[in-house]
Amino acid sequence: MQKNPCSIKKADNTFIYLDNAATTKPTEEVIKAIQPFMQDMWQNPSSLYLSSKKVNAAIEQARIDIAEFIGATPHEIFFTSGGSESNCWAIQGFCNHCLREWTNPIVFTSKIEHKSIIECVKNYCDKSMNLETYFVDVDSDGYVDLEELEDMIKDEIESTFRCKPFVSIQLANNEIGTIQPIKKIAELVHKYGGVLHTDATQVVGHLPIDVNELDVDMLSASAHKFNGLKGCGFLYIRDGVKIEPLIYGSQNDNMRGGTENVIGIVAMATALKECNTSFNDDSPNCKLIEIKKNLINKLKELPYNIQINNIAPESTNLPSILSATILENVTAEAVLYMLDSAGIQISSGSACNSRTNKPSYVLKAIGLSDWDSVRTIRISFDENLTEEDIDRFVLELKKAIKILIS
Amino acid sequence: MQKNPCSIKKADNTFIYLDNAATTKPTEEVIKAIQPFMQDMWQNPSSLYLSSKKVNAAIEQARIDIAEFIGATPHEIFFTSGGSESNCWAIQGFCNHCLREWTNPIVFTSKIEHKSIIECVKNYCDKSMNLETYFVDVDSDGYVDLEELEDMIKDEIESTFRCKPFVSIQLANNEIGTIQPIKKIAELVHKYGGVLHTDATQVVGHLPIDVNELDVDMLSASAHKFNGLKGCGFLYIRDGVKIEPLIYGSQNDNMRGGTENVIGIVAMATALKECNTSFNDDSPNCKLIEIKKNLINKLKELPYNIQINNIAPESTNLPSILSATILENVTAEAVLYMLDSAGIQISSGSACNSRTNKPSYVLKAIGLSDWDSVRTIRISFDENLTEEDIDRFVLELKKAIKILIS
Repeated sequence: MQKNPCSIKKADNTFIYLDNAATTKPTEEVIKAIQPFMQDMWQNPSSLYLSSKKVNAAIEQARIDIAEFIGATPHEIFFTSGGSESNCWAIQGFCNHCLREWTNPIVFTSKIEHKSIIECVKNYCDKSMNLETYFVDVDSDGYVDLEELEDMIKDEIESTFRCKPFVSIQLANNEIGTIQPIKKIAELVHKYGGVLHTDATQVVGHLPIDVNELDVDMLSASAHKFNGLKGCGFLYIRDGVKIEPLIYGSQNDNMRGGTENVIGIVAMATALKECNTSFNDDSPNCKLIEIKKNLINKLKELPYNIQINNIAPESTNLPSILSATILENVTAEAVLYMLDSAGIQISSGSACNSRTNKPSYVLKAIGLSDWDSVRTIRISFDENLTEEDIDRFVLELKKAIKILIS
Repeated sequence: MQKNPCSIKKADNTFIYLDNAATTKPTEEVIKAIQPFMQDMWQNPSSLYLSSKKVNAAIEQARIDIAEFIGATPHEIFFTSGGSESNCWAIQGFCNHCLREWTNPIVFTSKIEHKSIIECVKNYCDKSMNLETYFVDVDSDGYVDLEELEDMIKDEIESTFRCKPFVSIQLANNEIGTIQPIKKIAELVHKYGGVLHTDATQVVGHLPIDVNELDVDMLSASAHKFNGLKGCGFLYIRDGVKIEPLIYGSQNDNMRGGTENVIGIVAMATALKECNTSFNDDSPNCKLIEIKKNLINKLKELPYNIQINNIAPESTNLPSILSATILENVTAEAVLYMLDSAGIQISSGSACNSRTNKPSYVLKAIGLSDWDSVRTIRISFDENLTEEDIDRFVLELKKAIKILIS
């Protein structure tokens, strides 16, 4: 397994980019790596002539590199158009396979999953397929209630004919950074003969991952979250786990049709390989942990009431995401716009929910009120964030709050 | 509607590329257009700060441009990862919506559709969902048997409770170029209250298309078939036609989740706009028709028995695709390899079926024997193919056949 997580470069010197959980900047190496695949090696990787075979070889090398990075074998890696496709494929692919085999899939997930999971379970599983679905509660730090999950699975196993439990729990949350105890969840799910999928889009490329250590059956990743390109990702499917395709066709071993997004795939493997060797193998995220501590301390020194959400221990808390509620008469959106005009980019929640104007369901699930939810900012950074950047951010935040409450 | 079809540039001066139906080379303008979206405008289009809004504006402009090109309105255009996703989404999205509404979708398609359609109907519709599915016959030129289609629909309407017919017929075939009478099919389908989807991946960017003139309800397209990038396409969904998402999330008006493939979308719109104004509005494909005629004549002059498949009239026959069966003791694969070593790239069928070693189901459906199918080559070209290129290709083909039968 590749031990060194990927370096997330600072976006631009002219501004402070604190929204790496939304997307990251493609590295220079990534941009360079893809050029030949537009200029010369643009042929269809499935064609039989030599130039096509070279394109295909590049894809297969990417598959090998990516597999190695997460401790998988290459034929367990399936290229997709990103994390949302990987998530929706895992769910629908599992259920469609069960329906084909006349078994009853029962779907369990948490209340703080990515929107692609929540909406897929609510709409496809529940409304279209009329399946039993469960949304497990989380505590105030965002941890899944394992007892509740076990009780739900046990009840269904006992009462449902030919029951096949499917559990989808994210590896780390995109708004509050909570890292779930996936290994423990895997043990629980497998005890009842179930299949476990994990959405690892916020973790792949940021922290070392080993699918065997985690013992997950499926895992989703998205390239643009680790300095690759938007529109590309992968789904890891463990050998022996049977799911139907979502997009049919001959590519990816008949499991994911469509001419491969060659530049996206090459970019994804290039980005993953660009690991930051400055991280020590034993504490790969120590620099980020220091930055986060520093940020929290400086936020607390402000003359305003700022609450840090998810105060779980470092080991189970993504060091690159910080969620903070400004307990003053401000909205996160107003703060965001003021910081933007000062050259600092933060988020008021996840990018994919940014336009809904609804309080975040993740923050509500950990117990925040609607009003506290809309006063919450998300700061997500990489290890290149300097002391100077932090000071400038905190200063500008202070100024913004002062103006807004006056 | 944009009247001028897109110019398909010749791939490279160093070789003769005769496989444009498999993929096309991104134009210089396309490669140039995407660079800013990796260097500076790489932010998440859904974020709220100004730089993100600029990225979002580029996407929305692309949506407007693409809509205009096919006579649609922008909100009817949904970005996907390519033709296969668009096809699979149309089918599953329609069926999942019917199941949600407790109606019975019955799926009709032809025997010569793209693999993504055939496999989706066979596996998702038939095996997983246990729906009634029909594969309509085609004649020796590849035309769908309209009488058979009407009889099938009529029978189902009469015998199925709350029947909702869904018909997916391609606009033009990717192996033999047959252009289906979609307007007539639309009339038929709508007469019975059905919904018509057409896979137009071989036509968009090549011939003018107007979705209102064709009267289709959904239409699939793929950017890399018209000098865009692989991994991007769109699905047109007519206002009022209700389907479920396939990939859930907030993007694309809650219809297609996942952070948008910004460079793919910008490339797609740029490629579509690069229309060849040298075409006359009244006969936009006249140059290609001339090339195809010339090619056929020269192939017929060879001292070998070569049969042209699909001899339908010009108006209902894609001018850029030529399917020819070499009625000699050769295989298409061997011919392909010999031409490749002479710097000429052709196909033995569709790229996505190239590795199966099975005779093409398209060629079988139009009546070719297995042996004739494996002796069939596909030549697909753009309007930049010169007289000289044609002569060189025909000469090299002659040499190859001579060596192979000796």
